[in-house]
Amino acid sequence: KINGERLWDSLMEMAQIGPGIAGGNNRQTLTDADAEGRALFQRWCQEAGCTLGVDEMGTMFATRPGEDPDALPVYVGSHLDTQPTGGKYDGVLGVLGGLEIIRTLNDLGIRTKHPIVVTNWTNEEGTRFAPAMLASGVFAGVLEQDWAYDRRDAKGLRFGDELDRIGWKGDEPVGARKMHAFFELHIEQGPILEAEGKEIGVVTHGQGLRWIECTVTGKGQHTGSTPMYLRRNAGRGMARVIELVHEIAIARQPNAVGAVGHVDVYPNSRNIIPEKVVFTVDFRSHILDTLDALVAEFLARAPGVCADIGVKFSSELVGFFDPPAFDPVLVGRVRDAAERLGYSHMDIVSGAGHDACWINRVAPTTMVMCPCVDGLSHNEAEEISPEWAEKGANVLFHAVVETAEI
Amino acid sequence: KINGERLWDSLMEMAQIGPGIAGGNNRQTLTDADAEGRALFQRWCQEAGCTLGVDEMGTMFATRPGEDPDALPVYVGSHLDTQPTGGKYDGVLGVLGGLEIIRTLNDLGIRTKHPIVVTNWTNEEGTRFAPAMLASGVFAGVLEQDWAYDRRDAKGLRFGDELDRIGWKGDEPVGARKMHAFFELHIEQGPILEAEGKEIGVVTHGQGLRWIECTVTGKGQHTGSTPMYLRRNAGRGMARVIELVHEIAIARQPNAVGAVGHVDVYPNSRNIIPEKVVFTVDFRSHILDTLDALVAEFLARAPGVCADIGVKFSSELVGFFDPPAFDPVLVGRVRDAAERLGYSHMDIVSGAGHDACWINRVAPTTMVMCPCVDGLSHNEAEEISPEWAEKGANVLFHAVVETAEI
Ligand SMILES: NC(=O)NCCC(=O)O
Ligand SMILES: NC(=O)NCCC(=O)O
Repeated sequence: KINGERLWDSLMEMAQIGPGIAGGNNRQTLTDADAEGRALFQRWCQEAGCTLGVDEMGTMFATRPGEDPDALPVYVGSHLDTQPTGGKYDGVLGVLGGLEIIRTLNDLGIRTKHPIVVTNWTNEEGTRFAPAMLASGVFAGVLEQDWAYDRRDAKGLRFGDELDRIGWKGDEPVGARKMHAFFELHIEQGPILEAEGKEIGVVTHGQGLRWIECTVTGKGQHTGSTPMYLRRNAGRGMARVIELVHEIAIARQPNAVGAVGHVDVYPNSRNIIPEKVVFTVDFRSHILDTLDALVAEFLARAPGVCADIGVKFSSELVGFFDPPAFDPVLVGRVRDAAERLGYSHMDIVSGAGHDACWINRVAPTTMVMCPCVDGLSHNEAEEISPEWAEKGANVLFHAVVETAEI
Repeated sequence: KINGERLWDSLMEMAQIGPGIAGGNNRQTLTDADAEGRALFQRWCQEAGCTLGVDEMGTMFATRPGEDPDALPVYVGSHLDTQPTGGKYDGVLGVLGGLEIIRTLNDLGIRTKHPIVVTNWTNEEGTRFAPAMLASGVFAGVLEQDWAYDRRDAKGLRFGDELDRIGWKGDEPVGARKMHAFFELHIEQGPILEAEGKEIGVVTHGQGLRWIECTVTGKGQHTGSTPMYLRRNAGRGMARVIELVHEIAIARQPNAVGAVGHVDVYPNSRNIIPEKVVFTVDFRSHILDTLDALVAEFLARAPGVCADIGVKFSSELVGFFDPPAFDPVLVGRVRDAAERLGYSHMDIVSGAGHDACWINRVAPTTMVMCPCVDGLSHNEAEEISPEWAEKGANVLFHAVVETAEI
């Protein structure tokens, strides 16, 4: 078994870096805080006897050698970046849970057949630079590296330039590593495990995602002196589309979700009718046909909803992945480990996207989930208990070490 | 008659300061560009032989002495600050039109009985610091000076500190000056004069205004892993309230207008359901009862519209003025001047708020309007013709000089 106290202490130490304003974290990707978090993780890996590789997307790989020189490594990890108002566990638990496996193997003096590599994927959150899971997407060959470098944040800064600036652009070609398997431990970020009273989620599938960046264009006019009948109010177009997104998603409940989290109004002045609004729709489903239907209905209806009030609608797909089905053998190993350890468990679909969703395309992959309080995540108040973290890491430990011996 | 070419040249020279990105201006109040615009106006006033006073709100008063030492001055002016995406004429025409009167009187060697004072009111636009017409509101005794100093921009900077920083906090007590009359020349900012083919708007009344800053509070949750039925989406609350504002205003058309121009979503991340949205409703009417009814219906219905979807609504009045009726004697003088000059004219209600709306409470006040292309204002593409500017300034000249002799 792993050392739950040591894992928790490391989680709390990492949470000191990039503190939020309400007890959580703001350690967005490629910020100075991200660089600081990476340096702490690097030091811990070196103290645990690992060698560190960094690829051209800034993803970190800390290797504990195996006994068999021909055996491909077992990878385990997640991400250290957070939302602007993020929690202390989303991503971090998966990275430090992987590190805890290595520390435990060191304590026990166990040498596995396959090497074990703990991974910190760059820009999983996708808030500063869309899309989410950017580095794992390039690793899996689904996204182009040059395109990824050209992503820009709200200030117009390029991903590639910011990666250089914080000093974490490595020299390994992205995706060159071959994997025996990939495991990701993560908090559920939803309410199901807690509601069902289960300690472990055995993740069989994930939801697919579509991010649609929408632009509604009207006319920037004076709010006081422009008669109602002459207005082309882009803000009303945005309002109608937000309700349309909800209507389309709720009609397919519980197989779909949809919302708008990001909205920028131009010029955003109290006495100017919005000239333009840019916002991003987030649609998800674990059923590919449903996901396609959500997008098709949305793209069929949104232009009309806007045209009805004299404003123009246009859109661009800025994030996407299809619903993944994880490797049945690895899924079985996670289920067996939970069973063996005597933890309550259930099969579950991941509501959120994870680096595992992309890596699943290039290696046998699965995930382990633990509950989080109230299902709350992407919120500074995100919380888990030390017991949940420990049990999740124990299941991860068993499944990873078993895989590393085969 | 005034010199139309000189007036136009001055308008174009002022427009060099704080250029926008699309041919207009971004010379927001208390920015470095505002300071530069003020310095240019100061130089022009001094060259025209005026003495300059500045009050504690930063409002500038350039005085051309009169013959009678006991006669109160006739004031004329408007504002030099602009919207973030503003035009070259909104406000500027009224200030430089006033300056052109003085230049013309100098050319003609005419000495009026009453002094004439050209005024540049601080923060008319209200975009950077709500409310609009801040300095004239303090001058008229409707707003408190200390409260005005405490207004903050989106970055949290205080009005009082920024006024200090740009070096334009004067030492005159605000509102100490007594006025014989106040005149403001302004572009219409609406489509009526152009549509009716009139060169001059004789402004009899103005619309009243209410700015209601609304906060909708929900729960910041993960867009992927939070089931639809558990969501408390503040973005949906905002969307529903934006449509409510439209519905309430349009029901009272043409006696009311309403829109939301300013929206800030928190934390504004693609994969976080909005936790909180802050936005400002702008309601106007030239009928006080209608204005009150707009607000009453809105405040009665908005909380329910939000509660229906599990989010909380709260609001604060951040800007207000009642519909002004301008001084009938001065209004008659403007109408007579237009008639005498042979310009086509019509009586009109001002759709926008103006410093004249506040000054009307402490002195006989009226306005002169000229058309603007397509009724477009608060937009960098705002346009007027040199002829419209010249004719508006000629009417202003006649009405002001006549008043300065009585
Ligand atoms: N796990 C997580 O929150 N990832 C960010 C990508 C997503 O929005 O699902
Ligand atoms: N004239 C003008 O646009 N003033 C700003 C105040 C308002 O919104 O009416």
